[in-house]
Amino acid sequence: MPRLKLYFSYVGTRYHGWQRQKNTRYTIQEILETKFSVIANKRVSVVASGRTDAGVHARIQVAHVDVPDSVVRLYERNRLILGLNSLLPRDIRVLKVEPAVDDFHAIRDAKKKTYLYFLDTNPIQWPELRHSAWHLRLPIDWKAIEEGTRYFKGKHDFKAFCGANGNAKTSVREIYEAHWGAVRWRGVGGVCELRVLRVTGNGFLRNMVRSIVGTLVHVGSGKSSPEKIRTALETCDRKLAGPTAPAHGLWLWDILYLT
Amino acid sequence: MPRLKLYFSYVGTRYHGWQRQKNTRYTIQEILETKFSVIANKRVSVVASGRTDAGVHARIQVAHVDVPDSVVRLYERNRLILGLNSLLPRDIRVLKVEPAVDDFHAIRDAKKKTYLYFLDTNPIQWPELRHSAWHLRLPIDWKAIEEGTRYFKGKHDFKAFCGANGNAKTSVREIYEAHWGAVRWRGVGGVCELRVLRVTGNGFLRNMVRSIVGTLVHVGSGKSSPEKIRTALETCDRKLAGPTAPAHGLWLWDILYLT
Repeated sequence: MPRLKLYFSYVGTRYHGWQRQKNTRYTIQEILETKFSVIANKRVSVVASGRTDAGVHARIQVAHVDVPDSVVRLYERNRLILGLNSLLPRDIRVLKVEPAVDDFHAIRDAKKKTYLYFLDTNPIQWPELRHSAWHLRLPIDWKAIEEGTRYFKGKHDFKAFCGANGNAKTSVREIYEAHWGAVRWRGVGGVCELRVLRVTGNGFLRNMVRSIVGTLVHVGSGKSSPEKIRTALETCDRKLAGPTAPAHGLWLWDILYLT
Repeated sequence: MPRLKLYFSYVGTRYHGWQRQKNTRYTIQEILETKFSVIANKRVSVVASGRTDAGVHARIQVAHVDVPDSVVRLYERNRLILGLNSLLPRDIRVLKVEPAVDDFHAIRDAKKKTYLYFLDTNPIQWPELRHSAWHLRLPIDWKAIEEGTRYFKGKHDFKAFCGANGNAKTSVREIYEAHWGAVRWRGVGGVCELRVLRVTGNGFLRNMVRSIVGTLVHVGSGKSSPEKIRTALETCDRKLAGPTAPAHGLWLWDILYLT
């Protein structure tokens, strides 16, 4: 069967994460596969670049899916995206579909991933932002946060910065980029500035970005020091890491493929 | 009891509109009064500038509330907004509180109101926008819409452009301003351009803005003509108006008080 490459976006608030699960139908994979199967008139599997946790969003997620020829014909007549989006709930949108080379694999071929984490440090949070950015009302020492952020760059064993139940073979990952910036959010009913962490790596463990952000906020609010991050990376001692930041500030932002 | 003037914002998606109702607790007024009463330690009434329907949002809504001295002291110590927002759900936020002159009345003293209605005419709607802007996939004749929009300006009997069950004494209103513009929306996980109708008047009947927008979209999609709007205003014939636009694109934007 021909293979398609799928680009889609979702707001994860209502879902129990990406991955299909036995005890809930509210996963993005389950819904996408169900709707895709209606169009394909047979059961299809949608394989995304990686999981996202419950409540985490994706500006862009990429997947591959093997489909019967009837679906390829829909694609060629520009009806596939339209058909999928008319069946999907409005918090999941297919953005683009293209033919994939036969051996393209959304997980294996993902070379880099970028996540963004949004912090709202304004005194009052606009209601529209409540599911998209973590509202923090603590005074934050940004110098300490930026100092701490630098330690994450490079190749490290991130065992101290991941959730339990991860099933990765190794907890060594390489972070190519990690820095904080400011963005101007302009929603429909409000405008404000947000702080955002952009982090790019060759892969991420379960809860890794949220653990990094939680630890940095711990440092920035004076409950820990930047140096403890270095020690945590060297010793893999989870007790030196901070709490896990909430899911709703985290956005899967971009995935780099060479094919 | 001293009177306070309250500025607040809400995303109306989850609520059955502003006004307290017997058969549901999910109205914004009910929730605001309940939380305010906890802080005041007695039952208080919150009187807003006007109702908004189920699913309609408010960038800014204004209300007055009479409170015991204990609440005034909280206000003076800058703890009132903090206290209210910590009790309120995150889709309702108190933005500002100030002392009102004794005879200030949020309904009676509202001289002008502005509503914005957001249309998303992009081929695919970003998931974050699904509750904030009406996604229209029809080709739209903007010239016809703009021509039709002009007829609404001025003083008219808007009987053809309001919902049933309105309880206003007269259906005559004056529209000072009604025009379409474009705004750049920059959400957390997406960016696009939206079309927006800004309409300012001395008051609005139930469903009036949604009926105006629905009629204009009817005109813009070729199902009606701009001239029919003039006839509908002259004859008050509801059958000449189009359908009512959905609630979720409508935002109460601003209220002008002279006091």
